[in-house]
Amino acid sequence: MKKTILAALCFAACGWTASAQQNLFVAQDLESAIVNKDNSVTFNLKAPDAKKVQIVGDFADKAEGQHVNGMVGAGLIDMQKGVDGIWTYTTKPLKSELYSYEFMVDGVPTLDPNNVYVFRDFATVTNVFIVGNGPADLYEVHEVPHGTLSHRWYKSDGLKKTRRINVYTPAGYEESGDRKYPVLYLLHGMGGDEDEWVTFGRACQILDNLIAQGKAEPMICVMPNGHAEMEAAPGQSSLGFYKPYHMLKEPEPGAFVKYFPEIISFVEKNYRVQADKAHRAIAGLSMGGGHAMTISRNLENTFDYVGLFSAGVALDKGKKGEPYDNAAERLKKQVQNGVKLYWMGIGKDDFLYKSNEEFRKQLDELGLKYEYLETEGGHVWTCWRTYLSVFAPKLFK
Amino acid sequence: MKKTILAALCFAACGWTASAQQNLFVAQDLESAIVNKDNSVTFNLKAPDAKKVQIVGDFADKAEGQHVNGMVGAGLIDMQKGVDGIWTYTTKPLKSELYSYEFMVDGVPTLDPNNVYVFRDFATVTNVFIVGNGPADLYEVHEVPHGTLSHRWYKSDGLKKTRRINVYTPAGYEESGDRKYPVLYLLHGMGGDEDEWVTFGRACQILDNLIAQGKAEPMICVMPNGHAEMEAAPGQSSLGFYKPYHMLKEPEPGAFVKYFPEIISFVEKNYRVQADKAHRAIAGLSMGGGHAMTISRNLENTFDYVGLFSAGVALDKGKKGEPYDNAAERLKKQVQNGVKLYWMGIGKDDFLYKSNEEFRKQLDELGLKYEYLETEGGHVWTCWRTYLSVFAPKLFK
Repeated sequence: MKKTILAALCFAACGWTASAQQNLFVAQDLESAIVNKDNSVTFNLKAPDAKKVQIVGDFADKAEGQHVNGMVGAGLIDMQKGVDGIWTYTTKPLKSELYSYEFMVDGVPTLDPNNVYVFRDFATVTNVFIVGNGPADLYEVHEVPHGTLSHRWYKSDGLKKTRRINVYTPAGYEESGDRKYPVLYLLHGMGGDEDEWVTFGRACQILDNLIAQGKAEPMICVMPNGHAEMEAAPGQSSLGFYKPYHMLKEPEPGAFVKYFPEIISFVEKNYRVQADKAHRAIAGLSMGGGHAMTISRNLENTFDYVGLFSAGVALDKGKKGEPYDNAAERLKKQVQNGVKLYWMGIGKDDFLYKSNEEFRKQLDELGLKYEYLETEGGHVWTCWRTYLSVFAPKLFK
Repeated sequence: MKKTILAALCFAACGWTASAQQNLFVAQDLESAIVNKDNSVTFNLKAPDAKKVQIVGDFADKAEGQHVNGMVGAGLIDMQKGVDGIWTYTTKPLKSELYSYEFMVDGVPTLDPNNVYVFRDFATVTNVFIVGNGPADLYEVHEVPHGTLSHRWYKSDGLKKTRRINVYTPAGYEESGDRKYPVLYLLHGMGGDEDEWVTFGRACQILDNLIAQGKAEPMICVMPNGHAEMEAAPGQSSLGFYKPYHMLKEPEPGAFVKYFPEIISFVEKNYRVQADKAHRAIAGLSMGGGHAMTISRNLENTFDYVGLFSAGVALDKGKKGEPYDNAAERLKKQVQNGVKLYWMGIGKDDFLYKSNEEFRKQLDELGLKYEYLETEGGHVWTCWRTYLSVFAPKLFK
């Protein structure tokens, strides 16, 4: 929101009248959200007939607004009605971050009609904005060499589906001849899909920027869909534009974990990769952290780097012969085989904090050395973007 | 909306409590828009305190609702308030199409909180749904082999920018060894960007489906950003999440056209393409149609296939030496050099209808033979998706 491209006469030179295209819907003639110079943010909404307009946002302190029932990290803030029926609210200066919000207009959830940036978080959509001048600079597009993001499809014989997979190749990949690259497999959580690390996760921007700064090795980043029962993210599959629900049923227990080797084969067949343990990393958030833990212990000597971001890490709940079975034994084996970096991050308010604490004790008993980062915050993207920003520079060095 | 994935216990097997992720915002417990069996569509919105709820949609007959002032093709329809404060409306059976809509709640533009499918049309965002069982089946994802969509960046020395470009490679491209492919360059309109043919244009789905049906040749489809002053679509560039405006200023007259050869070089260097006139096509809508016309006549013997979709086609307005200069002479040369297919499509209600009619007369005088399709409709995506669906099967045969 910092810059505005001013309207200017275009194509007069080539002789036809400028005219808007389809444009069914004209936004209100307002800007919102405006990031001010002091990093406060101003929201505007024209709603002359509304009795009450509020913002639901993850930037709100619980003290500032009220905590919204059942919603993690969201505060509800009253906006003030001003002239011309324009409701407005300015936050205090915010720390550098990517934030989400929407309005509640007389109780109706309302996306900001003056902000076209809308991200889908599986079954919900919200507006977003970035407050820069800090850690969130990594989440912005800068004038640095950009990698390529490809939406591809791989055939899973195990899951009997052609499945969508997002692959980031770093800047220069296409022009680098025979050069081979290390690979980070980056997994989403239960309330996510293959697009989540691309949108809320800002994985392409984080990697572009860290690589350009010389802080991370150029690497390929593979983002599959961790729901074994899905072909693709909502709206990208043959289910059409259906209403997505968060909880899905695996076709068989541990199916995604079980058939993960198909993804590795696909990547190693289709990309110029360094196909050895020292050049493979796997990380994930929440459910994806559980996936990363299980896959990395089940596939022996496959990953030298493991990242567990607010991970679902409880052990020994699988039935005999299933992928989640025999966890402690397999972890012991992983310790024996050696792993270069076992990295864990979690927020102090995370509902998985306690199970992660227990898991760390188990790792201590098993003698698996890990790096551990404890941050403020709960089970939210703020943490996961931070963890990727911290984790990626540690890889392949 | 036809299918719903039912909630089911997930990951009980691996021992951690299922929990929604960030989920700031919980949608209302409703479905909307529901495509009914008879192709009518039902919208639902819970707004107990609202006095008036309406739908703005491109499915509305002007007679049914009222034509919204200044908005092309949109009707405004009153919804009825029912039990529990739920406002509802069911259309008559709609013809097969991808439709856009949003609500107006007491005058506030409100995206449907129960529909997560939101497309951005440059400076506006709307909900979408598809009514299938007809031509719009081509716009849906089906269980057919899928091509890859890559978001890449190319360096433009002329425009002094690294610019984002979307490239579709057909299913099988990656596994086809040395096989070379023909290329369609597909250009957007003034109110668009490189993402537009991917979202509203459904280019990947149309090509996937036509190729799978054996109706179109497997081809690469290149979708650049036609605004020479932009690096990338709004939100994808170093401008950040700014408020986009429709009208932009070219850095120099005809800059996109002038530096188009850089895009061809990039594609022919980076993809396995049949790099000759017989295997190059260029098409575009509106401003992009003007681009396609000008580029194809300026670059001699480069394109055997030209598609002008509701194109901006007025001639002879460029200054001497500029890309738009000398149009008639250059078209004459194009006739002499030969072009295999010069294809034009336009809707009867298009504001460019008259200028296209004049252009066709000029082509008649010049002896340039063209195919012409006149459809219902105005300057809208309904037409452009149809034109791509008709045009693509005619290429490279």
